[in-house]
Amino acid sequence: MQPQRDLRGLWLLLLSSFLLLFEVARAGRPVVSCPAACLCASNILSCSKQQLPNVPHSLPSYTALLDLSHNNLSRLRAEWTPTRLTHLHSLLLSHNHLNFISSEAFSLVPKLRYLDLSSNQLRTLDEFLFSELQALEVLLLYNNHIVAVDRSAFDDMAQLQKLYLSQNQISRFPLELVKEGTKLTKLTLLDLSSNKLKNLPLPDLQKLPAWIKNGLYLHNNPLHCDCELYQLFSHWQYRQLSSVMDFQEDLYCMSSKKLHNVFNLSFLNCGEYKERAWEAHLGEKLIIKCDTKQQGMTKVWVTPSNERVLDEVANGTVKVSEDGSLHFQKVQVKDGGVYTCYAMGETFNETLSVELKVYNSTLHGHHDTLNTAYTTLVGCILSVVLVLIYLYLTPCRCWCRGVEKPSSHQGDSLSSSMLSTTPNHDPLAGGDKDDGFDRRVAFLEPAGPGQGQNGKLKPGNTLPVPEATGKGQRRMSDPESVSSVFSDTPIVV
Amino acid sequence: MQPQRDLRGLWLLLLSSFLLLFEVARAGRPVVSCPAACLCASNILSCSKQQLPNVPHSLPSYTALLDLSHNNLSRLRAEWTPTRLTHLHSLLLSHNHLNFISSEAFSLVPKLRYLDLSSNQLRTLDEFLFSELQALEVLLLYNNHIVAVDRSAFDDMAQLQKLYLSQNQISRFPLELVKEGTKLTKLTLLDLSSNKLKNLPLPDLQKLPAWIKNGLYLHNNPLHCDCELYQLFSHWQYRQLSSVMDFQEDLYCMSSKKLHNVFNLSFLNCGEYKERAWEAHLGEKLIIKCDTKQQGMTKVWVTPSNERVLDEVANGTVKVSEDGSLHFQKVQVKDGGVYTCYAMGETFNETLSVELKVYNSTLHGHHDTLNTAYTTLVGCILSVVLVLIYLYLTPCRCWCRGVEKPSSHQGDSLSSSMLSTTPNHDPLAGGDKDDGFDRRVAFLEPAGPGQGQNGKLKPGNTLPVPEATGKGQRRMSDPESVSSVFSDTPIVV
Repeated sequence: MQPQRDLRGLWLLLLSSFLLLFEVARAGRPVVSCPAACLCASNILSCSKQQLPNVPHSLPSYTALLDLSHNNLSRLRAEWTPTRLTHLHSLLLSHNHLNFISSEAFSLVPKLRYLDLSSNQLRTLDEFLFSELQALEVLLLYNNHIVAVDRSAFDDMAQLQKLYLSQNQISRFPLELVKEGTKLTKLTLLDLSSNKLKNLPLPDLQKLPAWIKNGLYLHNNPLHCDCELYQLFSHWQYRQLSSVMDFQEDLYCMSSKKLHNVFNLSFLNCGEYKERAWEAHLGEKLIIKCDTKQQGMTKVWVTPSNERVLDEVANGTVKVSEDGSLHFQKVQVKDGGVYTCYAMGETFNETLSVELKVYNSTLHGHHDTLNTAYTTLVGCILSVVLVLIYLYLTPCRCWCRGVEKPSSHQGDSLSSSMLSTTPNHDPLAGGDKDDGFDRRVAFLEPAGPGQGQNGKLKPGNTLPVPEATGKGQRRMSDPESVSSVFSDTPIVV
Repeated sequence: MQPQRDLRGLWLLLLSSFLLLFEVARAGRPVVSCPAACLCASNILSCSKQQLPNVPHSLPSYTALLDLSHNNLSRLRAEWTPTRLTHLHSLLLSHNHLNFISSEAFSLVPKLRYLDLSSNQLRTLDEFLFSELQALEVLLLYNNHIVAVDRSAFDDMAQLQKLYLSQNQISRFPLELVKEGTKLTKLTLLDLSSNKLKNLPLPDLQKLPAWIKNGLYLHNNPLHCDCELYQLFSHWQYRQLSSVMDFQEDLYCMSSKKLHNVFNLSFLNCGEYKERAWEAHLGEKLIIKCDTKQQGMTKVWVTPSNERVLDEVANGTVKVSEDGSLHFQKVQVKDGGVYTCYAMGETFNETLSVELKVYNSTLHGHHDTLNTAYTTLVGCILSVVLVLIYLYLTPCRCWCRGVEKPSSHQGDSLSSSMLSTTPNHDPLAGGDKDDGFDRRVAFLEPAGPGQGQNGKLKPGNTLPVPEATGKGQRRMSDPESVSSVFSDTPIVV
């Protein structure tokens, strides 16, 4: 009976294996349970402080939060997860020994919104390192050894709102991350504190909107002391921006190898900071922005006479545009004064006052005068050139006239000169009709010595001009013909 | 010169101290720098794994994220932060030894959105413990020793979206957190896996919308095996809900002290699960919900004949309401068939098919018949009662009639009985007019033996009833007066 029992056992084993396979197939997806080193609460995998040298293999595909902090990870390779983790929104890798991250490390976690890489040993951020994280909102990179930030490391991160680069070795300010037209349109916090920044692009920084400056942390850097730096941060202080107000004791600069607080640079005699008014000239077009500390606030402007500025120009010359800016079509002297912008946000409200000074003179007026003079001058020169062209390039040879009928008034002034209406057939010019050049010119027929003076036209004396060849060049005319340019004699060509 | 130098040094010291004080005052807020045990990156304070027995004193007011995980905290008192932390949105307290949290612990952090209390030693959640966290979105309480959840512990948490209670000792399902009308209107994830749940409120769970069931994790609990449980989870499996699909291998139940997978209860002979069709009777009003796995999806319904259902009733009897439900005003036989709901969401789209069976009979018809019969019956009983009241409670004593005028038709049937119109003055009832009781009753005057039979009324015989006292009780009337109830004789009271 022994062999039969063995067969029965084998049969049962096969059946149970088949049932197990059936169950797996029934599930419709590979069975990946909680990794041994982790604590699993539905879609959260907490694997922190487990001395893990590598990311656990075969992570469940439904993982939403993966905590790998306080471990011994040193490299994050492209294949750290064999499967695509489409539900992963938070990846915590802080307090490890990471010194390498593959440029393809994040290709399988496209929905990541929060990435913590703080307190590691990263030295560089390669180009396009984070470009695949197009849904990322918060990136923590503080307390690493980052020396250089590649200009394209954060390209295509359209959703990035907060970037912490504090406590690194960065010496170049990454202006490409914040300047206008950058791809990081939602970035409201850039922490560059406790780095090795010496020089800042001060004019560029001053131009930034307040909602970026409000989250631009620059304290604890060996900045170069000068009055421009003092003016920059004094303006930020005047605007009560968090980046300065929360850390004004830590805003340092270096001068003669000594650290100074940015707001205590008396040795530079910079003079006290004073907020400047907006200045405009009469009739000028002007746009004043309501430069709030938060994006997307609802803005209401009030005039110096406590009237609300409307969306459309009513009686005055000012209106509020869609983005909440104050638009003056043509500034008038009465527009001067202090305008107030009341901005309402989700978390707080803000009130901004802007002073406008209007000068009682037009800035454009001078330009207009200059333009008129210029056009008159050009017009005159053009007239002279045209007259000269007429005089020297017409085929009619006026010197013939002198041969046929010598003037009896040669000693007269220019005012007594006149043009002969007698058709002048130039035998030298030839009668070649093939060039199709047909000109008709009206000349005055002198009625007598007393008539036709001052070039007055005798009506009805229009006569056909003899056909001339293109080659025929008009020779130098007599002084009388020149005087006709300045007379009222009409020339019909 | 030595004393003079000392004086100068003292003077300089005083001056520098004064300047320092001036600077502090200038800042306009108390100078609270980074606590010694923490790593500070602008508004992030990372104080994890520092063996801290208490929360560091004097936290900066601008703190947004405070990480105190992996420390030795055992109690979170009301005064753990001396100042109000209005910017704090994330508080990480996991991997400590917390066994006590003051009910006022969170009164100074009103803007908290993320609270991690996982991997501690909490046993109970007192009433209103988290009620002050009205902005909290995620609460992690997994891996504690929680035995009981107070019914009001999570009251007023209007923004709570995710609640992780996995790996505790909870034995009662907290239905108040998910059932309709609860205050947690945004809760989309409730993790109750790996607890001690035995019995579930199955009918209540089945009624929940799919977007709640999709995030209701119940695996790894010693549930009681029965066919109803199998049917519940089979439906969830049919709907591909994450809570079942991601953990179907871990969905267990207990039977005879043995663990069984919920989908492998062949010993119970439950029969295979089959999705039921919607059933309706002719003319019935019907609402079919598009029960999607996500909230706030855009829904489009398509009829069995592939026509889109509009927002307003056009030709047919069906329309789509504002919440995306299908509304039938009066179901017709031709409405039967498979309707499809296409739902478009932010992260994924969903297609739902619903079968509708219409019976060619009215359900309301039977109800109408029953209602008519019921009202008729009630009307009859009411009439009998009124007549009985009239007969037995009126002051007139009918037995007097027998004495005055003995009936010559005593052997007649009830149909020949009649009422005398003769006023009956009951001497026993007394003539006390002071009670103001005045009744007038019409009685029939018998015209003769052949007239007035069957209780026919002779018009014009209405006579005033003698005034009776309230004390006067009507005595038992003769059989003739009872027969009048079933006649057409009107009774004016």
